[in-house]
Amino acid sequence: MKAVVYRRARTLDIEERPEQAPRHGELSIAIAYTGICGTDLHIYHGDMDARVGAEAVIGHEMSGRIAEIGPGVTGWSVGQPVTVMPTRSCGRCAACLRQHSHICHAMQFLGIDSPGAMQSRWNVPADLVLPLPADLPLMHAALIEPTAVAVHDVRRANVDIDDQVVVTGGGPVGVLIAAVAQRRGARVVLVEPDAFRRQVAAELDVEAFDPATTDVVALVNERTMGAGADVAFEVSGSAAGVTTAVDVLTTRGRLVMVAIHPQPRTVNLHRFFWRELELFGARLYQREDMTEAIRLIATGEVAAHRLISRVGPVDTVTEAFAALESGGSVMKVLIDWQEGAR
Amino acid sequence: MKAVVYRRARTLDIEERPEQAPRHGELSIAIAYTGICGTDLHIYHGDMDARVGAEAVIGHEMSGRIAEIGPGVTGWSVGQPVTVMPTRSCGRCAACLRQHSHICHAMQFLGIDSPGAMQSRWNVPADLVLPLPADLPLMHAALIEPTAVAVHDVRRANVDIDDQVVVTGGGPVGVLIAAVAQRRGARVVLVEPDAFRRQVAAELDVEAFDPATTDVVALVNERTMGAGADVAFEVSGSAAGVTTAVDVLTTRGRLVMVAIHPQPRTVNLHRFFWRELELFGARLYQREDMTEAIRLIATGEVAAHRLISRVGPVDTVTEAFAALESGGSVMKVLIDWQEGAR
Repeated sequence: MKAVVYRRARTLDIEERPEQAPRHGELSIAIAYTGICGTDLHIYHGDMDARVGAEAVIGHEMSGRIAEIGPGVTGWSVGQPVTVMPTRSCGRCAACLRQHSHICHAMQFLGIDSPGAMQSRWNVPADLVLPLPADLPLMHAALIEPTAVAVHDVRRANVDIDDQVVVTGGGPVGVLIAAVAQRRGARVVLVEPDAFRRQVAAELDVEAFDPATTDVVALVNERTMGAGADVAFEVSGSAAGVTTAVDVLTTRGRLVMVAIHPQPRTVNLHRFFWRELELFGARLYQREDMTEAIRLIATGEVAAHRLISRVGPVDTVTEAFAALESGGSVMKVLIDWQEGAR
Repeated sequence: MKAVVYRRARTLDIEERPEQAPRHGELSIAIAYTGICGTDLHIYHGDMDARVGAEAVIGHEMSGRIAEIGPGVTGWSVGQPVTVMPTRSCGRCAACLRQHSHICHAMQFLGIDSPGAMQSRWNVPADLVLPLPADLPLMHAALIEPTAVAVHDVRRANVDIDDQVVVTGGGPVGVLIAAVAQRRGARVVLVEPDAFRRQVAAELDVEAFDPATTDVVALVNERTMGAGADVAFEVSGSAAGVTTAVDVLTTRGRLVMVAIHPQPRTVNLHRFFWRELELFGARLYQREDMTEAIRLIATGEVAAHRLISRVGPVDTVTEAFAALESGGSVMKVLIDWQEGAR
């Protein structure tokens, strides 16, 4: 079988490895498609060497079919389409003990802390595997994990019918948040400077504005008769995104912090005080978010597959990372691991 | 009757004015005690001239007795002890329409936007008046309004039994928040650099630490077996207070922003994301907060009167403001308006 192995910054090797049988409690999955996440890019850049180590098989956005069933595992059948929830919590830390195991302090993340999905056969604990509807195309299913992030974020904000929502940042997660919030009945405005990304958003029926030419705060105030937005999602990771997301909110408006801001940002705390604004950090997802993401994609309620910019076989993996790195006209790139993909 | 009139920065005059009968729907209150709030100090400094104008009678923390009942007002009796909720909402703005009238965008604040409590007779709309228990000393009752702020803030954080709470900033509101949270069954740590304020906190049975000599984050982690605080209240208005309040929180911990931060502050948003922290702005109070503050003070559950550093007659009002301004060894200063007070 083939595996994509991270060696060091900007060096991925495609290795031939022997297939291994699933151990007790595991399922062996024949990978169909893998996606590349922002975290995978961070690893590729060498930013996470202390955590991933050398020789790591990365990747955690995927779809596939069960190829082999390990000892002690029941209720599954070979050939069944599946995806994987790539997080394992410890059950003992302060987060786990308070029912927040999805952000466990000692989280084992598959594809970071243990071998990931970028291999033709992936052996994973059966309790992390989720079944897929038979008629859901496996290519679309590779978008389930990022969609689960969006579902979690929207749930964290308690988005309601007719809420005015603003999303700052139109990468894959930003567009998915906008689409999921819209499915909940919210009125959504996406803010994204890149024209290509705005066009992809439009393909998911999300209205997107360029902050260079549109005063988003004025636009939202106009649409809400001066009230402002009920919910803002900061997904850009930029200082400007934070400012817009705070300024656009109505009294008691909710800001969900989705993006990673490596450096501290200046925040207008007076506005938080004056309007009793609320801020919620949001990270990863819970099992119910994965299940809901499967439903949204399977029913077509969220056309996540429209984010796919290109699909290539495993020997194009370095090109795929380079394309994402360059940031031009690429949204989501998938690797096709199936026999006969080139 | 006498009235304290704000002329211009640092100039308060005590004027003799004719008593006016209450108008339709009003009650006339013979003031017993008034307190001086941080907002009154801002006015005194000249920072709010655009809003208060010249010739303003300021003040909104008070207690008194009904002296006269205006036309159309029923259910009250002369001599009855009362306090006043000094906020009037418009009923039409975005905040009011969403049940957040306590932070109405067009708020009329008595003592800022209309004549305040620093006069021997105060005529106010009857619907803003709250009855007091007969056995509650009127001197203690002058602390009801700041205690209502604390009740609102604690309610906003949803403080629960056994929650570990940290309060950064030990002025009157910070100490009251600590005391109210403690009454709810929380374990409370107050952080305050001033030794006098820490001593006053101790008189309300609140444990206070000097951040110059105690690593508060380490202390709280030790007390919570590494988990961190469930709730932090930022009441200091300082950059250091914000940093401590963010760093001390556990996963999904709640930070309540009580202080006014006139300039934007740098905030570790990554920690908000990583631990799914929550931030809630909190301002003023609702009627139920006033009612609960009356109960807490009347029952002695919160010994708010221990905040009172001195009480003087109206001709000491300028001294009182100067003492608060100097910031030394003074917590709460009251003016006694009753006949024979000097």
